[in-house]
Amino acid sequence: MPDDAPMTPPPTQDELDLLHYQSRFDRPIPMKAPEFSRDERLRHVLFSRQFSVDMLEDLAGTADMIRDLSKARSGQDFLINLLHHKRAMLYFTQPSTRTFLSFMAACQILGITCNEVRDASTSSETKGETRFDSIRMFSSYFDLIIMRSPVARLAEACAYVMNDLAATGNRSVPIINAGSGADQHPTQALLDIYTLQRSFQFVSPKDSPLGTRYEEIRREHPSLTRGLSHKVYGFCGDIGRGRTVRSLAELLAGYEGVTLAFVAPDHPTLSLGDDLRERLLARGVRIFEVDSLEAPIDGKPLIEQVDALYMTRIQKEHNVAADVESFAKIDFDRYKLNRGLVARMKSYAPILHPFPRDQHFGEIPPEIDADPRAMYFRQARNGMWIRAALLAHVFNVDHQISRFYHEQFGAWKPTGLQRV
Amino acid sequence: MPDDAPMTPPPTQDELDLLHYQSRFDRPIPMKAPEFSRDERLRHVLFSRQFSVDMLEDLAGTADMIRDLSKARSGQDFLINLLHHKRAMLYFTQPSTRTFLSFMAACQILGITCNEVRDASTSSETKGETRFDSIRMFSSYFDLIIMRSPVARLAEACAYVMNDLAATGNRSVPIINAGSGADQHPTQALLDIYTLQRSFQFVSPKDSPLGTRYEEIRREHPSLTRGLSHKVYGFCGDIGRGRTVRSLAELLAGYEGVTLAFVAPDHPTLSLGDDLRERLLARGVRIFEVDSLEAPIDGKPLIEQVDALYMTRIQKEHNVAADVESFAKIDFDRYKLNRGLVARMKSYAPILHPFPRDQHFGEIPPEIDADPRAMYFRQARNGMWIRAALLAHVFNVDHQISRFYHEQFGAWKPTGLQRV
Amino acid sequence: MPDDAPMTPPPTQDELDLLHYQSRFDRPIPMKAPEFSRDERLRHVLFSRQFSVDMLEDLAGTADMIRDLSKARSGQDFLINLLHHKRAMLYFTQPSTRTFLSFMAACQILGITCNEVRDASTSSETKGETRFDSIRMFSSYFDLIIMRSPVARLAEACAYVMNDLAATGNRSVPIINAGSGADQHPTQALLDIYTLQRSFQFVSPKDSPLGTRYEEIRREHPSLTRGLSHKVYGFCGDIGRGRTVRSLAELLAGYEGVTLAFVAPDHPTLSLGDDLRERLLARGVRIFEVDSLEAPIDGKPLIEQVDALYMTRIQKEHNVAADVESFAKIDFDRYKLNRGLVARMKSYAPILHPFPRDQHFGEIPPEIDADPRAMYFRQARNGMWIRAALLAHVFNVDHQISRFYHEQFGAWKPTGLQRV
Repeated sequence: MPDDAPMTPPPTQDELDLLHYQSRFDRPIPMKAPEFSRDERLRHVLFSRQFSVDMLEDLAGTADMIRDLSKARSGQDFLINLLHHKRAMLYFTQPSTRTFLSFMAACQILGITCNEVRDASTSSETKGETRFDSIRMFSSYFDLIIMRSPVARLAEACAYVMNDLAATGNRSVPIINAGSGADQHPTQALLDIYTLQRSFQFVSPKDSPLGTRYEEIRREHPSLTRGLSHKVYGFCGDIGRGRTVRSLAELLAGYEGVTLAFVAPDHPTLSLGDDLRERLLARGVRIFEVDSLEAPIDGKPLIEQVDALYMTRIQKEHNVAADVESFAKIDFDRYKLNRGLVARMKSYAPILHPFPRDQHFGEIPPEIDADPRAMYFRQARNGMWIRAALLAHVFNVDHQISRFYHEQFGAWKPTGLQRV
Repeated sequence: MPDDAPMTPPPTQDELDLLHYQSRFDRPIPMKAPEFSRDERLRHVLFSRQFSVDMLEDLAGTADMIRDLSKARSGQDFLINLLHHKRAMLYFTQPSTRTFLSFMAACQILGITCNEVRDASTSSETKGETRFDSIRMFSSYFDLIIMRSPVARLAEACAYVMNDLAATGNRSVPIINAGSGADQHPTQALLDIYTLQRSFQFVSPKDSPLGTRYEEIRREHPSLTRGLSHKVYGFCGDIGRGRTVRSLAELLAGYEGVTLAFVAPDHPTLSLGDDLRERLLARGVRIFEVDSLEAPIDGKPLIEQVDALYMTRIQKEHNVAADVESFAKIDFDRYKLNRGLVARMKSYAPILHPFPRDQHFGEIPPEIDADPRAMYFRQARNGMWIRAALLAHVFNVDHQISRFYHEQFGAWKPTGLQRV
Repeated sequence: MPDDAPMTPPPTQDELDLLHYQSRFDRPIPMKAPEFSRDERLRHVLFSRQFSVDMLEDLAGTADMIRDLSKARSGQDFLINLLHHKRAMLYFTQPSTRTFLSFMAACQILGITCNEVRDASTSSETKGETRFDSIRMFSSYFDLIIMRSPVARLAEACAYVMNDLAATGNRSVPIINAGSGADQHPTQALLDIYTLQRSFQFVSPKDSPLGTRYEEIRREHPSLTRGLSHKVYGFCGDIGRGRTVRSLAELLAGYEGVTLAFVAPDHPTLSLGDDLRERLLARGVRIFEVDSLEAPIDGKPLIEQVDALYMTRIQKEHNVAADVESFAKIDFDRYKLNRGLVARMKSYAPILHPFPRDQHFGEIPPEIDADPRAMYFRQARNGMWIRAALLAHVFNVDHQISRFYHEQFGAWKPTGLQRV
């Protein structure tokens, strides 16, 4: 090294470990997705784009069956014994009570025993252990790793580690990404879709604002169809930093004829990112980007036009210094719901929110909670069921569930989804 | 608002949420108790005064059966499968290892899977979520919420939230109060009563200082009867701040002819509160308030007169600045047991303590532990059994336990309690 | 007390509690071991020297059977129901993610429900509770206490508390030491031995660097035998402070004709302690103490001579002020492996490490991981199986496992160990 070379500390093994996978990271998702499947079945769940529309329908069907079976003791007993020999590690170094508890409950429904590491500082990492050594330790003791990390790409890297171990005849377990950096949160997208699937079947008063009154709604909205296609989806709030918005938008893009309308302040931090816009346009999605729920869409104010409205929290914990000043000029009240706005929405249009909502900001004040369009509490419970369905898929017991279900109920279809 | 109005911050949604229930809080307990029951059965467990004497006898009977069944593998297998499809949330934002573990064990005896949130700062509350949103999230994933909070009335408020949800056709789960503010700790009172119930049956050498020697004791104490009625109960130490004292006293007041003797320094923080005194007097309880275990009761020193002695820890962690100076003048040694005092107690009189005891204060020095009257370790294990019985009651499986018990053992009565 | 006596604070009850057992602590291990057994079976697991060579063989056999049974659903179902009525407390006031999770998984394999207390400050100890009161509380609620503590001798003291309770007819549960002070870590030694047992059977390609090629190896090394006797074991790194080194060395000393070679800097903190050296010599073990992997043993460099190599991490978190200066002169690079060194090792010699390894120090760089001699990841999973075997032993269900195993597989021997 020449004398005048700048002195930089050598990279840590943790940094080298991520660099090692850089060329694999850089590939487009469709190119790498096959590596995360095995026998037509997801092995590792990392990106929302791994879910095809067919798979989304299958998972929803499994979730519906689990939910129905859970209502009676015989079904509960069947479910609780399905995977009671499996042990999961929930490795959550980025806190999230809601996602954590939802996965815990999902595991417990199928009898999976849960273990957790939630604070990196209490783990062996303080003794100098690399993250990959930690992951490999977890894979020694447990049968599944559900992980949430502030480090972008870490879940993906861990999936490569597992695949490389499998390739050399070593023990390897599935990785499920429960939130990775600012990047991906595929199971949140899954529960959002599942909530929309149930709403737009119009078969249950709990899942659809107008319940089973589909024919009645059709008299007022003749072009309305069951299912997720041919609808207008509004997203409101922190579009730029909301990974749940990104993941859901990507999944909706797989349905026919959807329109996505993004309502956010005209600010680079908060509005639609260039990469997502490009990908959506490339897939033929119709996009609107506006700064108000009153902005016109096809000649009517957006709030009156959307078939579903996805509200979000302004993630102020991610504000950087430069944001504070520029945010001061924004009128954030435009990104909050109130009774007047809700009254103008379509009667059947569900309101979703990934939760938690912010009581100080007030994007959805509690006065909305009693409105039949408020679907955000229902959405949380949907998350538990669809995550249980995902675990059943990964562990290849979904067919067992289906078989038991039909033995119990014959040709009876799961409630909620009488798919069309 | 006039220009000169004082600037106070607007109330938070959390504060508004509690205010919303203020008029319900303010009602007397007997008026609200029916709302916390369903079909003659407790739905939410909030106040010790919800337990009638009949219910206390029923719960003790269930606890005795669970305890007996736990001694053999067939009974264990029955119990562990009773509620294995249920998931509990232990939401303990006020720490208490002992109460927490006791509830965990109680759940596990019946097969209930436990989940926990113990640190409010790691939960979604840091992202601005209201406590009611958190509770509703828990009720989405779990079948029971056992909660302990520094916020007075919070458990009661959550029960109203659940009742209001049920009334509108939404999902709703039982709330069990495991300690709420300085206020109520109903399951501690339950285990105290259960310990006294077992002691005063004189059927087990483990539960009664003199075991089965009831007839022998009666020769010396001819007026002695089985059961909790017609007895003198001494309470010693931090009477003013001990919510366990308050809760137990309220329950004992339901029994016939009891005398309650409170031994505490003559200091407003530490002695009997006015509200409790009034309620006890209104129910016809005979009360003594003294500042020493040597004070005379019916002509004899209190220590020689009590049928049971309930010791407590001075809760110095709740001292306020003003207390420190005034406490300096108190001779706290008078509120500690020693061998000499115990030797003078009635031979059959159990010593209880809600635990933990304070090694630095020394209200019960370890030299007492081997005395047969020391019932405080037994008391802890009783807490686990009676909490399991309470869970069985809330989930309506107590009759199943009773049926299985009698199939196994015929007309044989549970050990401990051959009720009279 | 004379006026001029020095003022020292009186001892706390916690300190008195430990002093109370001082005379029992001071006895040699063989004298006290019988107190920790019951009916020829370990009741409390405190010291590695409680394991005889026969017991080590038995435990390995049970571990092998558990492992084989875990491969099929019928075996899993059998195991998971074996002890599902038992509840364990993992009381880890000294952090160790790895040991903690390994015990969790071991419990779960047998169906034991786990509970944990990991932070003394959240427990009742902050309210003045003694450690013995805490332990007795745990024993009220749970059926087993697995404990790890920074306080030397605490696990042993707790075992005496339990024995004294049993002697007076009180409830008492087994204590398992998962690391106590700088002193003992018996289950780590157990898993190290189990890893060597499997390696030196030469029956599985996963457990032995050269797999089943025993006869082939024997052509080059004619004196080689199966099993742990007559071998040279190298230990490298922090010999002085490594309690895993101490515990393993003590167990190896029970085998015939072993040579132990300790490679450490010539520094009193890091090199072999006098007490251990004396005990090993007294048992007839041949010992080498050198400061380099290149030092000659029987005429060849140590690295080429060892039959197994046990690497360790320099425990810099235990450095005291005086160490820092004197350590500066040490060339620590001599205590790190690299590809060149590994290439010179015997082809069948396993490399072990108690883990975690230190990425910053680099005693085993990741480039070694793919070498067939690298047995340290396998070792971690072995720990789970052997701990499950230990639990089965303590709860007296190992014979049930053996019976079920032979019903399933007839005379088929467990994989891995066809003992000789």
